[in-house]
Amino acid sequence: MNSSIITIIWMLICAFLVIFMQTGFAMTETGFTRAKNAGHTMAMNMMVFVIGVLGYWICGYALQIGTKGLFLSGVDSDTSIIILFLSQVVYMNIAATIPTGAMAERWTFKSFVVYGFFIAMFVYPLYASWVWSGGWLSQLGRNFGLGHGVLDYAGSSVVHMVGGIAGLAGAIVLGPRIGKYRANGTPVAIPGHHIPMAIVGCLILFFGWFGYNAGPALADGGLRVGVIVVNTMLAGVAAAVAAMCYMWFMYGKPDLSMIANGLLGGLVAISASCAFVSPVGAVMIGLVAGVLCCASVFFVERKLKVDDPVGAVSVHGTCGAWGMIALGLFADGTYGDGLNNVSGTVKGLFYGNASQIAAQSIGVVVDIGFVFVVMYAFFKVLDRIIPMRVSEEVEFEGLDQSEVAVNAYPDFSITKTRR
Amino acid sequence: MNSSIITIIWMLICAFLVIFMQTGFAMTETGFTRAKNAGHTMAMNMMVFVIGVLGYWICGYALQIGTKGLFLSGVDSDTSIIILFLSQVVYMNIAATIPTGAMAERWTFKSFVVYGFFIAMFVYPLYASWVWSGGWLSQLGRNFGLGHGVLDYAGSSVVHMVGGIAGLAGAIVLGPRIGKYRANGTPVAIPGHHIPMAIVGCLILFFGWFGYNAGPALADGGLRVGVIVVNTMLAGVAAAVAAMCYMWFMYGKPDLSMIANGLLGGLVAISASCAFVSPVGAVMIGLVAGVLCCASVFFVERKLKVDDPVGAVSVHGTCGAWGMIALGLFADGTYGDGLNNVSGTVKGLFYGNASQIAAQSIGVVVDIGFVFVVMYAFFKVLDRIIPMRVSEEVEFEGLDQSEVAVNAYPDFSITKTRR
Amino acid sequence: MNSSIITIIWMLICAFLVIFMQTGFAMTETGFTRAKNAGHTMAMNMMVFVIGVLGYWICGYALQIGTKGLFLSGVDSDTSIIILFLSQVVYMNIAATIPTGAMAERWTFKSFVVYGFFIAMFVYPLYASWVWSGGWLSQLGRNFGLGHGVLDYAGSSVVHMVGGIAGLAGAIVLGPRIGKYRANGTPVAIPGHHIPMAIVGCLILFFGWFGYNAGPALADGGLRVGVIVVNTMLAGVAAAVAAMCYMWFMYGKPDLSMIANGLLGGLVAISASCAFVSPVGAVMIGLVAGVLCCASVFFVERKLKVDDPVGAVSVHGTCGAWGMIALGLFADGTYGDGLNNVSGTVKGLFYGNASQIAAQSIGVVVDIGFVFVVMYAFFKVLDRIIPMRVSEEVEFEGLDQSEVAVNAYPDFSITKTRR
Repeated sequence: MNSSIITIIWMLICAFLVIFMQTGFAMTETGFTRAKNAGHTMAMNMMVFVIGVLGYWICGYALQIGTKGLFLSGVDSDTSIIILFLSQVVYMNIAATIPTGAMAERWTFKSFVVYGFFIAMFVYPLYASWVWSGGWLSQLGRNFGLGHGVLDYAGSSVVHMVGGIAGLAGAIVLGPRIGKYRANGTPVAIPGHHIPMAIVGCLILFFGWFGYNAGPALADGGLRVGVIVVNTMLAGVAAAVAAMCYMWFMYGKPDLSMIANGLLGGLVAISASCAFVSPVGAVMIGLVAGVLCCASVFFVERKLKVDDPVGAVSVHGTCGAWGMIALGLFADGTYGDGLNNVSGTVKGLFYGNASQIAAQSIGVVVDIGFVFVVMYAFFKVLDRIIPMRVSEEVEFEGLDQSEVAVNAYPDFSITKTRR
Repeated sequence: MNSSIITIIWMLICAFLVIFMQTGFAMTETGFTRAKNAGHTMAMNMMVFVIGVLGYWICGYALQIGTKGLFLSGVDSDTSIIILFLSQVVYMNIAATIPTGAMAERWTFKSFVVYGFFIAMFVYPLYASWVWSGGWLSQLGRNFGLGHGVLDYAGSSVVHMVGGIAGLAGAIVLGPRIGKYRANGTPVAIPGHHIPMAIVGCLILFFGWFGYNAGPALADGGLRVGVIVVNTMLAGVAAAVAAMCYMWFMYGKPDLSMIANGLLGGLVAISASCAFVSPVGAVMIGLVAGVLCCASVFFVERKLKVDDPVGAVSVHGTCGAWGMIALGLFADGTYGDGLNNVSGTVKGLFYGNASQIAAQSIGVVVDIGFVFVVMYAFFKVLDRIIPMRVSEEVEFEGLDQSEVAVNAYPDFSITKTRR
Repeated sequence: MNSSIITIIWMLICAFLVIFMQTGFAMTETGFTRAKNAGHTMAMNMMVFVIGVLGYWICGYALQIGTKGLFLSGVDSDTSIIILFLSQVVYMNIAATIPTGAMAERWTFKSFVVYGFFIAMFVYPLYASWVWSGGWLSQLGRNFGLGHGVLDYAGSSVVHMVGGIAGLAGAIVLGPRIGKYRANGTPVAIPGHHIPMAIVGCLILFFGWFGYNAGPALADGGLRVGVIVVNTMLAGVAAAVAAMCYMWFMYGKPDLSMIANGLLGGLVAISASCAFVSPVGAVMIGLVAGVLCCASVFFVERKLKVDDPVGAVSVHGTCGAWGMIALGLFADGTYGDGLNNVSGTVKGLFYGNASQIAAQSIGVVVDIGFVFVVMYAFFKVLDRIIPMRVSEEVEFEGLDQSEVAVNAYPDFSITKTRR
């Protein structure tokens, strides 16, 4: 028993925390949607983990690391490959979960299952390999002199943007919920049915995020683990305060739902850069993320006219993109020597280096382009084979009985307005 | 500070996770029962932990380890005995919790308290000593050549079967809830009142199970911890998928409640063998567990006519038994040299060794026989002294006010149908 | 990577658990208050963390440690200062959260925000510096021969009493909720709206408390970590049993709400002394705490006529004070050599030493005096600048829409009685 066992137990504990984030997503998404669909939203959040792990085990992991690991067969006991599987599969699951929020309250369970396998087996692993497993985006620095290539410490782009963009594509293909837009295009608020559940989910996500961001921190000796944790905390709270102030200033009141989304947006944004920036930098990144998240929610709803019931596209897509760019701005040159085979530490624009932000921008553009095109095409084809949208009658009645054979709240009288 | 401190903190963290499983049980059981009894079901789940710890501290632990430790007195600070107490008491609590699900919605709180002390002080410790503390079941290998004796890495039999069988005995003694069976014996579905709560509980249990199964993993140097964690994950998700497919195929729809139970059944089943089988073996064990769990729920409800509100007998009893047998089938010979004083690694029937499955089968039979007889007799006697069943009026009205002096949802209008 | 990295990851994991306690507080407080204020109560619990971290980062931490750390600037990566910040900020947050329970259901959000900054930036850090950062209370032993000076291992006084007393001052300034007292002064029970939520919160707090109490345990080599954890567990369960028996004996029934409060009171009480007492001592401390908590709840409600919706003053204030005194009674002389620069181990009155309890008593008196005076004055002044109490109309209607722009349960029909 030695230093490697410490690294292993740290990775395991952090992986457990990330698994617990699944509970946070389930609660946040279910709380922010309607009572008549609560069983269905919960079911998607639980099953996306189940299906995702299986799919990633079958071939996703092998595709990502590029050589071996189909069904984890031929893997010796407890080698690095099995630990790496564990630490990677949990990231994949976060990405796969995100679209269930953007596509909630109208998605057939059957087509959702197919989606789950598709993203876990192919889309996520491919993009992750480009950034995290030595793929071409990670080598933009060595090959083209763009800083250290695309850097994404804990997945602002690999995890959150992939999920957010996939959710955007899916929400477009599905179309808005019945009653979301008036004939003249004005959006109608459809409030979530259980705000305490949503907020508890958000707090659980905050808790799990420490494992999410700090999981890889001991791999290089642990010198940055403190910085990573404190940056994660500061960016999250700064974003929540920014969202609170923004809503208070713009609409006259603090809005709890938007504060919660803002907080999550701050955590998404800091994920890429948590190891590279100073605490003050983390606060700046969080403040911007909080405002950006609110503005993006309104933009998606009012301008794009895309119905995203829980704000997943803004929290994970928009703030993920901001997080990638922010690394190119705020990286302070105290960390990253040798990353992606580039010597020297990582510096952003505010520290006099313009090449890192160029790499980050390419990462953002490629992420959006690749994921949107692939997922949009996938959903379009899938919809032809297995209709993705439930019938109007089921949508009015709620998806619970029809899709997952439960009634979420049989002892309570709940509203099922025909909106 | 050295290697032993790493083992200690790992055991503590895993013990904390198992303690958190209590929250998972509380939510799953309460969600799967009715609103009018929600306070009572929560109360049992909280108090069984409270009472169990006290009882185990008083004499349960001393009985299990056989020589010392009454009231933990005479224990020097921070010796192995106090750490072992912590890691054992949490397992005991899981066993003690399980019957509160099978016996929910009709059990007097007073008799429940007596039960809590009884199982924690006597029944669990005795059986645990036979398998885990060098007792006769563990020595079937050395003494009679039956493989390595009864093996149960993390408690498919010691914890889950003990709980499941005790719950079966209790549910028989209590009889079914009013309205559960029609005059002609046909069962009536009594849906749980809060499916999101139940699913969140299930996700928390999944999270905690990693600590549950991996807690002992560093004791022998940590070589298997990765295998254990990945097997736990794979068996759980495979069981959930199997339950989903089974229900979809048999009844035309995926059934969220049964999927959740299936997932838990897979985790129960892999607990015994998580260190001994390959990832592919874990998936096989999970697939069988998922189907078995569903079939068992219907068998208990329709054939045995035992009213088990949350499926505890099937999840923990049936899948626990399957897990014990599965170890005798799938153990792949890569682990276990020297266990229970038998040299050589552990091999199952599929790897050419028939003697391990013989030991496992004896373990299953002894577990069922011992626990059922003792607990059935105990409940019968207890019922004469302190009536175990609430009055018909209380059962109609809900147990909350009468038994634990609360009203779970005073601000909501809830249904109390006379079923 | 070496022994210090083990200490660091242990401190981080424990800090994460304490962060998770925020979820427990949010659920317990929200469950024990009314449906019409559920969004507001959740919002306070989430935002007090957010605001608290910011305030502590700005200057609270610097004030506490006395020399540097404003904005954590000038802090080298991952030095002890950043880890200490993490382990301290989470304690501060617990203290800051407690008053949100005592002051629930009537507090304007705007004045709450100001409170959050005030306690995190000034009040908590100052008192914490006196006990934990070498301040005058910690030196009562060296300077005046009073045992080892004021000892408080994990915050019965520094965290819980500070929160409980601040809550008492705030609840007095705010006055009781409309309908809480009849014209003749008789209190009216206002039941919490979601008992399962409250109990789950309580179980989460129990889970998190292990991190809370054991976090500092490796700093001195880890010799007491086992004792600390087992004492925490035993005091909690003993207090729950005591509360159960007390209510059963006095009022004829076990009362789930009071059991939950009793359990928390036991955990509060053991926090000061968890490293200094034997398991039997921990059980004694817990038993007293459970009874004391119940009695205090009735005393505050019926004699003081202070409306504390969730019992925060009793759980944290009263039991915190008892925990400080208990250390002076039950410390068994097996630990503490050299603490606060006093040689020899820590012994309480029952082990023949009267000087430690003198120090503890001074700690209790100073805590009550300092916090009550400062916070009462602060709230009085604040109320003149930003009215602290919502309008009668808002209080009748519920604070959710007015204060935090949400409706907690829009799909459920909930009661808003004019009580």
